[in-house]
Amino acid sequence: MSFESFFNPQSVAIVGASQQKGKVGYEILKNMIDAGFEGRIFPINPNAQSIEGLECHGDLESLGQTPDLVIIVVPAKVVPGIMQQCAKIGVKSVIIITAGFKEVGEEGRELEKKISQIARQAGIRLIGPNCLGLIVPANKLNASFGGNLPAVGSIGYLSQSGALLTAILDMANASGIGFSKLVSIGNKADVDELDVIDAFASDADTKVIAGYLESISDGNQFVRQAEQISHDKPILLIKSGATEAGAKAASSHTGSLAGTEVAYESAFERAGIIRCSSIRQQFDYAQALANQPLPAGPRVAVITNAGGPGIMATDSIEQQGLAFAKLTDETIERLSSKLPTAANLYNPIDVLGDALADRYEHALEAALDDPNVDVVLVLLTPQAMTEPAATARAIVRISQQKSAKPILSCFLGAAKVEEGVRILREGGIPHIDASERAVATIKVMADYARWRSRPKRVVKLFAVNRRKVENIVDRHLRQKLREIGEAEAKEILEAYGFVTPKGTIATTAEHAAAIATQLGFPVVLKIWSPDILHKSDVDGVQIGLKSVKEVKDAFDLMMYRIPKKLPDANILGVLVQEMCSGGKEVILGMKRDPHFGPLMMFGMGGTMVEVLKDIAFYLAPLTAEEARHMLVKTRTYQMLKGVRGQEGVDVDALAEGLQRLSQLVTEFSQIQELDINPYMVGPEGTTPIAVDARISVEEV
Amino acid sequence: MSFESFFNPQSVAIVGASQQKGKVGYEILKNMIDAGFEGRIFPINPNAQSIEGLECHGDLESLGQTPDLVIIVVPAKVVPGIMQQCAKIGVKSVIIITAGFKEVGEEGRELEKKISQIARQAGIRLIGPNCLGLIVPANKLNASFGGNLPAVGSIGYLSQSGALLTAILDMANASGIGFSKLVSIGNKADVDELDVIDAFASDADTKVIAGYLESISDGNQFVRQAEQISHDKPILLIKSGATEAGAKAASSHTGSLAGTEVAYESAFERAGIIRCSSIRQQFDYAQALANQPLPAGPRVAVITNAGGPGIMATDSIEQQGLAFAKLTDETIERLSSKLPTAANLYNPIDVLGDALADRYEHALEAALDDPNVDVVLVLLTPQAMTEPAATARAIVRISQQKSAKPILSCFLGAAKVEEGVRILREGGIPHIDASERAVATIKVMADYARWRSRPKRVVKLFAVNRRKVENIVDRHLRQKLREIGEAEAKEILEAYGFVTPKGTIATTAEHAAAIATQLGFPVVLKIWSPDILHKSDVDGVQIGLKSVKEVKDAFDLMMYRIPKKLPDANILGVLVQEMCSGGKEVILGMKRDPHFGPLMMFGMGGTMVEVLKDIAFYLAPLTAEEARHMLVKTRTYQMLKGVRGQEGVDVDALAEGLQRLSQLVTEFSQIQELDINPYMVGPEGTTPIAVDARISVEEV
Repeated sequence: MSFESFFNPQSVAIVGASQQKGKVGYEILKNMIDAGFEGRIFPINPNAQSIEGLECHGDLESLGQTPDLVIIVVPAKVVPGIMQQCAKIGVKSVIIITAGFKEVGEEGRELEKKISQIARQAGIRLIGPNCLGLIVPANKLNASFGGNLPAVGSIGYLSQSGALLTAILDMANASGIGFSKLVSIGNKADVDELDVIDAFASDADTKVIAGYLESISDGNQFVRQAEQISHDKPILLIKSGATEAGAKAASSHTGSLAGTEVAYESAFERAGIIRCSSIRQQFDYAQALANQPLPAGPRVAVITNAGGPGIMATDSIEQQGLAFAKLTDETIERLSSKLPTAANLYNPIDVLGDALADRYEHALEAALDDPNVDVVLVLLTPQAMTEPAATARAIVRISQQKSAKPILSCFLGAAKVEEGVRILREGGIPHIDASERAVATIKVMADYARWRSRPKRVVKLFAVNRRKVENIVDRHLRQKLREIGEAEAKEILEAYGFVTPKGTIATTAEHAAAIATQLGFPVVLKIWSPDILHKSDVDGVQIGLKSVKEVKDAFDLMMYRIPKKLPDANILGVLVQEMCSGGKEVILGMKRDPHFGPLMMFGMGGTMVEVLKDIAFYLAPLTAEEARHMLVKTRTYQMLKGVRGQEGVDVDALAEGLQRLSQLVTEFSQIQELDINPYMVGPEGTTPIAVDARISVEEV
Repeated sequence: MSFESFFNPQSVAIVGASQQKGKVGYEILKNMIDAGFEGRIFPINPNAQSIEGLECHGDLESLGQTPDLVIIVVPAKVVPGIMQQCAKIGVKSVIIITAGFKEVGEEGRELEKKISQIARQAGIRLIGPNCLGLIVPANKLNASFGGNLPAVGSIGYLSQSGALLTAILDMANASGIGFSKLVSIGNKADVDELDVIDAFASDADTKVIAGYLESISDGNQFVRQAEQISHDKPILLIKSGATEAGAKAASSHTGSLAGTEVAYESAFERAGIIRCSSIRQQFDYAQALANQPLPAGPRVAVITNAGGPGIMATDSIEQQGLAFAKLTDETIERLSSKLPTAANLYNPIDVLGDALADRYEHALEAALDDPNVDVVLVLLTPQAMTEPAATARAIVRISQQKSAKPILSCFLGAAKVEEGVRILREGGIPHIDASERAVATIKVMADYARWRSRPKRVVKLFAVNRRKVENIVDRHLRQKLREIGEAEAKEILEAYGFVTPKGTIATTAEHAAAIATQLGFPVVLKIWSPDILHKSDVDGVQIGLKSVKEVKDAFDLMMYRIPKKLPDANILGVLVQEMCSGGKEVILGMKRDPHFGPLMMFGMGGTMVEVLKDIAFYLAPLTAEEARHMLVKTRTYQMLKGVRGQEGVDVDALAEGLQRLSQLVTEFSQIQELDINPYMVGPEGTTPIAVDARISVEEV
């Protein structure tokens, strides 16, 4: 869709414009006028002749023309009628400021349905209701009641909370941060976060997309589009409600580990979205990304006029996992020719407490020219001799001459550095008033640069027996069975190229002994019941049985004891299985997230998974790189690779297992949850075995 | 020592006072005068008659009286002469601003030694050299070149970086944060951080002690005294150089896990010191602790006029591990009688976007009266109807009526909330401009309150055979042996009540078989060499040997293969040991930190310790609670307690092991490092076994 008539209307009507100060209908009109809007403004109010010197019309129809944009501030119950007028005269873009819709209950929800229906039928695009409005500083458009027009800049901001936007505007004004557009999306009756992000993506004035969201309307679509957009413009989001959702964790095994929050994390990672935890952090990142090039690597040089802040920045660089630039001999020599003897020429470059602007200038030039430096952080404390303003001017000047590498600044203090900070900001040098936050910003820039340059995602498709899985899944759905038992779950896995242990279900001790003899000892016995998900909790797994006697004894003990513990469980027998040993136990799993679809899981197997919580998640479908990255993200990975003379496991085979599973759950959206636990992996060249598995399905 | 003549001098001489603007000798004199100092100021300068209207003297002796405090700003090489004059006329307190001492190399170090010698002999207490000076706002004393006199407050600040202090002063002025005293400690030639902290502890005007440190002079003493002081006044420290030290990790096993940074963490934890990672964080915490009571518990109530910030605060409360207060029915009813229907009466209490001050007032009163609430956080966004100033006044008023529970505030925005924020600050309500930082501050208050009310530390003393350990340690030191071999290490452990597996060293295969037969099968064989620390790296451990043949084969293979791998190792034989099994393997260890003494370590045993890095550290001596807390801090603890039907281990026995080890290393300061790995622990009631151990000693 085009946002042209939202962002750059030539005429704006305000339905519900008021003469009464303090009323929203007055504030919006006043804001429109005060901003110096250059198009026409039509206040619509049947009870006024004129407001603030502008002629009033009784209704939209009597205007005699179709305004590009209509802003509605009348009470909720009157809004549908106004929308119908809009439709009648051919309005295409509407902002409904009015509250009292979906957010207040059933009646409001009905009202909201009605207005979005009118909009859809008439081809009207609608922002709101229950929103703060829209601001486009460059076009002098302040169609909001959020306060004064902010500075022009290149950050596009969208917010699901109008109140937060008022605070953001006030904070931005104080810090001299400018915006290309600000959109309050309110209840998202029509235009949602993705529409606005899309509009920002194609808006030439927007370099950075930032926002505050509480929910995402269509997770799948969001990820797909955001991923494309992130390649051109960074997207910085605050997503709140993180932990509340986590508390509503599902009750099953994988479920209890993968809350919706994890899905959001994965979705943002996939889409290259930079997640922010506070407004200040978002401003830090946005400033830097809007004004500076991305660093080619993680090597940071620090210039300072005091030891303490230099050490603190050093700590942060190491803690963030960035690299400390090792200056070349040439740079050291160049620095030594310009700086006093007592100065530290190595990184951090300490120009000393009595440094004037010229020392900063020399140091910054030398650091930027050093091939070992990817990004420079300039620290300053306002000591007796310090020249914050002149230093700021020098930094801006050099950044204009040498614009290939990013420069960030951190002038500690307040009044003493105020002018310098203003000069830096106006000169496009991001200023962040605490070194640890400046370093965190560099980290985000470096990570985003790496994300942008990652190879194109290619998801491998394996040859599989899809028909077989279809049959099993369809039969379960027809019979309204949610859980697919171990035996058929393994058939499904086999159809997708997994190897499972040989085994058969025995119903008597003698039968078990016969199966065991045929398989060869040792064997494993597992209680067989659709009602027992966690077999080891009820001593329903016996491993390493080495003789006919041991098998018979174990069989009879299970059949005697377990029904006493679980009298209601339907016990079908005991699975007699070949014993897999010698490998390491891991768990592969998937849980389908309601917003983002299949969320893959990898962790240490057995009972350890719950103790160590060392689990990696990622959204399917997985590329080979992503599957491998899931492994690497865990601490378990070190152990899988082999430590202290222990042989490692076949990591490629493990990654392939994740990819095959990813293909299975992508092709079968009926699969809601899936666990292979344990998945037994051996040394390189061996085939991992899916020892136990459970799958649950649902009609979709 | 008394800081009376530093903090409240009646007369101050400035040696090196200058007429020349921009010179430190001028700036200090000017700062002294501008601050309105009410005592006498004596500029000392042989080349001037008067400076800034004050009569100049040629030297200290010609003053004809002894000033309470002398500030020295003459060049470094002249300082010893001035110090001698100070000694001669009986000066007791001196601040040396001058730089060019220890920090510039050998010559400066000599000079610094000389001045501290003079000070010691004459009983002069000395702050500096190479410092910014001293500020006492309430006494109008600005003996520094750090800028204007800051506001009077109750924070005592000390800094090892003068430059950082200039930034801190500037920032504090901008935020209206006040101080009782500020001390720049410079090179700490005499007065060090502990002296100043001590002085702040006994200073009635100081409620909170805060500081920036790069090093601590005497770790042991520091911990002991800080622990006492923390019971009365919170100590908030930024300690930089965290990661640099970590990089210099020692090369041995425990060493590579326990960097000095870990010792600092433990020392701060023991002493109740609140560690801060930035100046802003320190201001947040200091403000809150200086002005508000400590919360009785972790239950937070949030009051807000907007949903978004409320959700963000909720997220933070859960992430920080604080509790969400569940309001009583009585409170809900009380709220419902005063707030509009649409308001959310549950926590977070949403007074809605059109709330005036009165709604905040009602909500705050009700929340404070609720027995389920320990602390209240008030959030505000500056919406159209919002009254930031009136709301701030209401909060201050209520806090004065109901002063038992802490109140924190977070008014989002800038210009629109400026007046409100000023009213809050002046009224003693901590204001923090981001909700996640406000919540982090509440967390620190709650943790500190819990630390203060913890039971008195009682270290249990076990009956041990100290003489035996003395003999072994002394013999090693006499023979200049640093490593105590496994056999004698175990004797030491046995003397302190540990149980070790039975075993003997064999030198031939036949000998090994005979020992094994006597011990009973299965047995373990371990290569025996002072040169092999990690036996399993060279296949020097064989477990589960079940027969004479297996023992003989394993013996011969070790004796054949290991010398080929390690031709230089002195192999003394093979230890034949009873096989301990059935328990869980953990590691108990100790590494002596150069600053803080013995640092105890607990983690998962075997090769896992390096992979999982799931290790807890704490300074010895350990109380029973601290030993148990070390266990609980690890993720491994869940597994030790028993998961999924697996039996747990005897956790009390484990804690006792840590306490016994703590006693050993406390009583023998020669022990530098010690590892029991693995320490095999079984179910409740069983005795853990120290299967392998190494100890290294050094002359002290």
